[in-house]
Amino acid sequence: MNVKHLDEIPIHTVTMHGAEGVKVRRLISDLDGAEHFAMRLFELEPGGHTPLHTHDWEHEIYILDGTGIVHYEGQDYPMTSGTVLLVPGGKEHRFRNTGQTPLRFLCIVPLRGDV
Amino acid sequence: MNVKHLDEIPIHTVTMHGAEGVKVRRLISDLDGAEHFAMRLFELEPGGHTPLHTHDWEHEIYILDGTGIVHYEGQDYPMTSGTVLLVPGGKEHRFRNTGQTPLRFLCIVPLRGDV
Repeated sequence: MNVKHLDEIPIHTVTMHGAEGVKVRRLISDLDGAEHFAMRLFELEPGGHTPLHTHDWEHEIYILDGTGIVHYEGQDYPMTSGTVLLVPGGKEHRFRNTGQTPLRFLCIVPLRGDV
Repeated sequence: MNVKHLDEIPIHTVTMHGAEGVKVRRLISDLDGAEHFAMRLFELEPGGHTPLHTHDWEHEIYILDGTGIVHYEGQDYPMTSGTVLLVPGGKEHRFRNTGQTPLRFLCIVPLRGDV
């Protein structure tokens, strides 16, 4: 079994083109022995956003703290603590922090999407 | 895309033999279009625990609130908000709330483990 606390896990700035004010912790990955899917914790500073992008794997997301919007196929949807999202593969999406505090969410993807 | 809030999702008592004071919300499942893995939110009342059991799929777990212990292969490990666990398949485990408030955690499993 692999047990650790969030605070022990390194945090990295996401440098992907189109990302602004985004950091990530890889909570569970293939490095921990995960065989099928990976868990990441993203943290967006106020005003921060992920790229508007598309890929062929799904996201399962749980909003921990903060408020924001997800832009999905041309529409905006609000997100707050306790919001749950299934973003299917192949659909354009972007997450943005519209609040005054960090927006933190868990994002689980198939291992091939954990890059 | 499937977007919903925790509060909209029905909560069920877990009736599996050996479970006490355990409730679950199925946040994302095959019913929502998930293709590979499911996200559930478990809530254990103070003193509550899951069965001591084994199955051949893995758990990926994130502790949201509360404090507890996971009993794993004969040893106890503490858990609190921000604890992350990868419980591999085939290993005996049990989660217990040792605090005075609900213990809430996300548990992601392959779809075949979402029963």
